[in-house]
Amino acid sequence: MGIRILVWNEFVHEKQEPEIAAVYPEGIHRVLAAAFGEHPALAGATVRTATLADPDCGLTDAVLRETDVLVWWGHVAHHLVPDETARLVADHVLRGLGLVVLHSGHFSKPFKLLMGTSCTLKWRDGDRERLWTASPGHPILRGVPEHFELLVEEMYGEPFDIPTPDETLLIGWFAGGEVFRSACLFRRGLGQVFYFQPGHEANPTFYDANVRRILGNAVSFVAPARRSDSLDCLNVEALEKR
Amino acid sequence: MGIRILVWNEFVHEKQEPEIAAVYPEGIHRVLAAAFGEHPALAGATVRTATLADPDCGLTDAVLRETDVLVWWGHVAHHLVPDETARLVADHVLRGLGLVVLHSGHFSKPFKLLMGTSCTLKWRDGDRERLWTASPGHPILRGVPEHFELLVEEMYGEPFDIPTPDETLLIGWFAGGEVFRSACLFRRGLGQVFYFQPGHEANPTFYDANVRRILGNAVSFVAPARRSDSLDCLNVEALEKR
Amino acid sequence: MGIRILVWNEFVHEKQEPEIAAVYPEGIHRVLAAAFGEHPALAGATVRTATLADPDCGLTDAVLRETDVLVWWGHVAHHLVPDETARLVADHVLRGLGLVVLHSGHFSKPFKLLMGTSCTLKWRDGDRERLWTASPGHPILRGVPEHFELLVEEMYGEPFDIPTPDETLLIGWFAGGEVFRSACLFRRGLGQVFYFQPGHEANPTFYDANVRRILGNAVSFVAPARRSDSLDCLNVEALEKR
Amino acid sequence: MGIRILVWNEFVHEKQEPEIAAVYPEGIHRVLAAAFGEHPALAGATVRTATLADPDCGLTDAVLRETDVLVWWGHVAHHLVPDETARLVADHVLRGLGLVVLHSGHFSKPFKLLMGTSCTLKWRDGDRERLWTASPGHPILRGVPEHFELLVEEMYGEPFDIPTPDETLLIGWFAGGEVFRSACLFRRGLGQVFYFQPGHEANPTFYDANVRRILGNAVSFVAPARRSDSLDCLNVEALEKR
Repeated sequence: MGIRILVWNEFVHEKQEPEIAAVYPEGIHRVLAAAFGEHPALAGATVRTATLADPDCGLTDAVLRETDVLVWWGHVAHHLVPDETARLVADHVLRGLGLVVLHSGHFSKPFKLLMGTSCTLKWRDGDRERLWTASPGHPILRGVPEHFELLVEEMYGEPFDIPTPDETLLIGWFAGGEVFRSACLFRRGLGQVFYFQPGHEANPTFYDANVRRILGNAVSFVAPARRSDSLDCLNVEALEKR
Repeated sequence: MGIRILVWNEFVHEKQEPEIAAVYPEGIHRVLAAAFGEHPALAGATVRTATLADPDCGLTDAVLRETDVLVWWGHVAHHLVPDETARLVADHVLRGLGLVVLHSGHFSKPFKLLMGTSCTLKWRDGDRERLWTASPGHPILRGVPEHFELLVEEMYGEPFDIPTPDETLLIGWFAGGEVFRSACLFRRGLGQVFYFQPGHEANPTFYDANVRRILGNAVSFVAPARRSDSLDCLNVEALEKR
Repeated sequence: MGIRILVWNEFVHEKQEPEIAAVYPEGIHRVLAAAFGEHPALAGATVRTATLADPDCGLTDAVLRETDVLVWWGHVAHHLVPDETARLVADHVLRGLGLVVLHSGHFSKPFKLLMGTSCTLKWRDGDRERLWTASPGHPILRGVPEHFELLVEEMYGEPFDIPTPDETLLIGWFAGGEVFRSACLFRRGLGQVFYFQPGHEANPTFYDANVRRILGNAVSFVAPARRSDSLDCLNVEALEKR
Repeated sequence: MGIRILVWNEFVHEKQEPEIAAVYPEGIHRVLAAAFGEHPALAGATVRTATLADPDCGLTDAVLRETDVLVWWGHVAHHLVPDETARLVADHVLRGLGLVVLHSGHFSKPFKLLMGTSCTLKWRDGDRERLWTASPGHPILRGVPEHFELLVEEMYGEPFDIPTPDETLLIGWFAGGEVFRSACLFRRGLGQVFYFQPGHEANPTFYDANVRRILGNAVSFVAPARRSDSLDCLNVEALEKR
């Protein structure tokens, strides 16, 4: 069975700001969904979308049980995602759900819950970024050149307050003088979390061929190998006679 | 200036259960404080204690600002620590406070906040444990033999749902047939968290010479190299002309 | 195209010792090759074998270029593998070749070259082992229970002198009182190395269903995402005008 | 007892090239030794130096036994260090010796032995570098600002073929458009290895206050907690009756 992808987008900027709507007329989620639909590693996948305006943000327990990988874009409306929804998403990750967090999602509630750190960083709108592969053998970087550029992207700069990633895949160079761990992997419970820094709403980043390749590879990589129904401590009998 | 240590103990069992009081008549915190007072790596340190019964659990912002390393023992009363207190402790860790979490503290609110995982494990009261050094060169294991035993300890068993530790120092072997990552280090923000599995309230673990050596070494190791007042994202000017 | 697997076995014990030949009449490599041939994750794979007695150990540059994953079993004849052959294998790993190292291969020349440490451990023949999953969500543990037993296996015990693994998947418990990081992953260059502790020549370990599942999963997981022809430092032009 | 530091420098450029001699008239080792002599974390330390021209490179077993931390600078003469000397140094690290490897030492024999990878990178002489703290709470970065600049330094760029560091402390930004993991820690056996990228022979890098602070902190941090005489596998008796 193919991977069941759910693309979640707060979908606020695109409806309110004409400049953003010009870049993503039907919303960032639609462009991401299309990217996954044509990615070679995701043949057979199904792609759904959900937004903040959906009942329960479109993120119920039932929906998450039928999802293998959740892709998250949010920015100005992090606070409008209910705490219980954020907890539900995080718990599903611990039970195996794959999670891909994009750009300003570093400050989303589910990501912060799963990291346990402040997730703060330096930022500045409107810079030029060059991304360098730091672990070129990783499957998420399959088909990605040693470096590639995004002509306009929001600068996110170190120090980035995250736990040491299990793997740092890309390091970003910014023309304004900063660096950033721009693509990082974290195992949390049975699930995996992939954080990817590019993707400001004003920029056509999600049309970029390398970005699309990376994100599709990432969805494939974080798809769960195992799911669980429970996160309980168990009181167990001894396995050995004493 | 010496390290400023604060030993926090929920201090419930010792007051309610005679068998526990027999082991720790004045409370686990007193025994730990004494251990730190005589540890060679902690010359010049000051040791204070606080318990759940103190106003604000004895864990105010002012107290934590004057603390370098917080040592935490809790078990039956995790839920009585207010959420805001747990958040305050976790935020101080991100700003540099060292945190040593003992035994059943794997389920304490500050530890769970900082890990981002469920922190679940297998458990069984009353087993025998042998602890093996997995990273014998680490300063926290200075003076500790390759393996040592605790004749009675509560079994905690894998899988232990924590993020991959930055370092796994000890692996526990249990007579009942289980294993456990019994001593783990995690960097979180500017702070460091050391988790140590032995230390059930019914057992004289905190009188054990190896345990005392490890815990004193750990306090010394997680003492902060830097503190910060803020956990904010900063919007910064470019450093390079473009 | 399916994964191209090469199973290398020194193939000495099986020809010299009747007790070993009774367990692996045609050699350990044949049993492993059969396991891979029937593994669900390896549909379409091709499996070849090579041994110490082959010209150049069966490990020429041409053969390694046509191999995706090399599986290595060796014990008494590590020193008979020429240094140049070991270097060739290690360099192919750095260029992307996947490597699965079994049991006493912890002391094989290619593994030691890739680890950079002494790879020493404690050992004792003839014990009983129970293996616990420490990272149950990892694809290499797909389909593997939380714990499983091997009734007779050689004890390998901590401290195991290896660099901190990128992931520790299994921790072994031994009836004689030791523990061991029994399944570990290491990224080295473009390649990945999986070390698996069970597999002493006198024991029917490679007929065990869980072991076969793990090894097949591991071969699938370490298959390369990218290969390179070169390991050279490059003197490069600036990408930015200054 | 204070830390016993040995600064090793191949000491070739400074004797052969007037431009280099102008920067380091008595050799890089003298400037480093002076820096350690005045570092606040190294009070009580003793500092010796050795060079390629000394008998046995000044790196005998006896000398290394009396050394806590070895600091290594080499570039054009890596191949003149005998293989046995490199092996001796690496084995001492595994037995506890701290090792600080500077700049072009990424290609020194001891570092390559301990990493197990090719240690290749991109390079270009004469760039400007800004170093960013990626783990600002680490003791090696005590007193170091969030970022600092070196006006002329040799560019080293990703991908850098090293195993995932235990910690990445600094990430370098280069005006020419590259990034680099410029300060990395690795535990190997009982020892620790600190790699630091700046320090080209033509540049006054080792006079820079931040660089001196970092290197002194690093020497203090990698000083051994434990030494061993042996790297042997031991055949051990069972600890449990069965």
